[in-house]
Amino acid sequence: MPRFTSLAGLYAACRELPEGDEGAAAAVAERQARLTKPPGSLGRLETLAAWLARWQRQPMPTLEHVQVLVFAGNHGVTAQGVSPYPAAVTAQMVANFSAGGAAINQLAALAAARLDVIPLALERPTRDFTEMPAMDEAEFLDAVSVGHDAVGAGADLLCLGEMGIGNTTAGAAVAAALFGGGGARWAGRGTGVDDAGLARKRAAVDAALARHAPLLGRDPLRIAMALGGRELAAILGATLAARRRGVPVLLDGFVCTAAAAALARLAAGALDHAQVAHVSSEAGHRMLAEELGMVPLLDLGMRLGEASGAALAVHVLRAAVACHSGMATFAEAGVSDRS
Amino acid sequence: MPRFTSLAGLYAACRELPEGDEGAAAAVAERQARLTKPPGSLGRLETLAAWLARWQRQPMPTLEHVQVLVFAGNHGVTAQGVSPYPAAVTAQMVANFSAGGAAINQLAALAAARLDVIPLALERPTRDFTEMPAMDEAEFLDAVSVGHDAVGAGADLLCLGEMGIGNTTAGAAVAAALFGGGGARWAGRGTGVDDAGLARKRAAVDAALARHAPLLGRDPLRIAMALGGRELAAILGATLAARRRGVPVLLDGFVCTAAAAALARLAAGALDHAQVAHVSSEAGHRMLAEELGMVPLLDLGMRLGEASGAALAVHVLRAAVACHSGMATFAEAGVSDRS
Repeated sequence: MPRFTSLAGLYAACRELPEGDEGAAAAVAERQARLTKPPGSLGRLETLAAWLARWQRQPMPTLEHVQVLVFAGNHGVTAQGVSPYPAAVTAQMVANFSAGGAAINQLAALAAARLDVIPLALERPTRDFTEMPAMDEAEFLDAVSVGHDAVGAGADLLCLGEMGIGNTTAGAAVAAALFGGGGARWAGRGTGVDDAGLARKRAAVDAALARHAPLLGRDPLRIAMALGGRELAAILGATLAARRRGVPVLLDGFVCTAAAAALARLAAGALDHAQVAHVSSEAGHRMLAEELGMVPLLDLGMRLGEASGAALAVHVLRAAVACHSGMATFAEAGVSDRS
Repeated sequence: MPRFTSLAGLYAACRELPEGDEGAAAAVAERQARLTKPPGSLGRLETLAAWLARWQRQPMPTLEHVQVLVFAGNHGVTAQGVSPYPAAVTAQMVANFSAGGAAINQLAALAAARLDVIPLALERPTRDFTEMPAMDEAEFLDAVSVGHDAVGAGADLLCLGEMGIGNTTAGAAVAAALFGGGGARWAGRGTGVDDAGLARKRAAVDAALARHAPLLGRDPLRIAMALGGRELAAILGATLAARRRGVPVLLDGFVCTAAAAALARLAAGALDHAQVAHVSSEAGHRMLAEELGMVPLLDLGMRLGEASGAALAVHVLRAAVACHSGMATFAEAGVSDRS
């Protein structure tokens, strides 16, 4: 039996979010002011240490058990010719993840993180959302539940990512329905479609909005159900679970951020325990982060998905923790403070 | 006897720079196109792997022996009230580096890098360059030589950084003389001067330019000698040595980039073996990187110096190498390529 068996139950969970520990965050700021460096000179490393402390609810944050979760799904909208790769690549890449040959395998290992890859009913693609809702309620709740329960007990940081041929079109449709604008605003080149493919992606998003928008209004969960995909739903579930369990989250690129964005549209501050790890070169990502008021940590022109940007940003957080934990104070080091 | 005993000899070395291995870089690009990802989807991780290969002169770049070099110097221009910290802090921080209590100790350890800290005649600050040249020719060549010879045999990456109370004023003066504009363009708040201190920094830069500019013209080495400092000269020497020995370089923040910039003004392409590791929040750094046509790897609001941003960017390069070396090709993984 899935964790969530009704939309009403999921709505309730999404609106009953625990807050962070402001005392832990304040303790970080107080210690940072005494470390042997000019105040504020470690920039985001200082605020990230406080952010980790706030959501881990401890004044000395740790990164001993980093989990990378990659969800995979297939998409009926591939029938619209929105990807240069065949849909079979989703399952082939899951096999590649298992064999250790993908980018995320290398990046998770480099970050000393545990990697869990969870394929979601790849043999049953979502329906083509230009024609009907991508998922019914049971399918959507199942995927959200799988994502929710995949967050490991004891994780002190969660990196989220996805794999799914066609899913930048789903991400664009979700972003458009959540934040306004159509295919021209949100569809990008994904894995590298040509101009004709990009036109088809835009048309698919616009067709989906025309078909479903009147039904969806601004209901974020119904948008995620009708226009998203199983891996997006699982990311939503995992982001929610992390908040409930005190686990800070690194969101990866465009699809991942679009998946989590539904939470932010349900409840202000629902993504305060998350950072956008990097800004993807997928066209809509920078704008999506801006809509959410989030400043990505890295900007390296990556657009692979698979949690690759999130796994890379783990090193930034480790640097924040290492400086916070390991540096001497002015008093300890006998260094003169400002005159 | 220092390695460089005349400005003429140093000039000659700066103008006889070896080129990179374009064959090694091309081999990286060819392999990247066959790895299991859409072409170009790892963004700068792909171009950085090629860059490492070009300057290490091998098609499979390695990062087994990363060296972090931090040079420290004292500055007569502190007499102008350009820093909120007393000049004694330079030596105190060198002691803090030795004891392992500074940010760079934590960041070098996290990057599995060797850290060498080299204080340069701290008991003899450079002269106040608002009144006379900061160094004479022998002092300058000594510092350049120390920097040159500090680059370790067998290093496969060099991270450069500095420590020196007053040295953002020196960096601003050097940048101004190299690229034009005065104190208002190049002086920033450094370790955190207030408005009055910032005005004094700008005035010090303008005074130095007025005193020395007619003599200096656009001669980059004479600019580095008259307006720089020993740690800046050592960074220049280390950057030069790295080029001659096939070691790629990560430059840290504003002072470090200003120190190396003199090389770029001497010979086009002289910094092709270097990346700006991060853009500092010190006011002039973004502009300085733009003047050099270099795009910083990270933008995290850091402004500490000590090679802190360079040590952090090592992880980005390691990610580039890990993906390049460890990923499977489409053929190896049985993944379908673009249709």
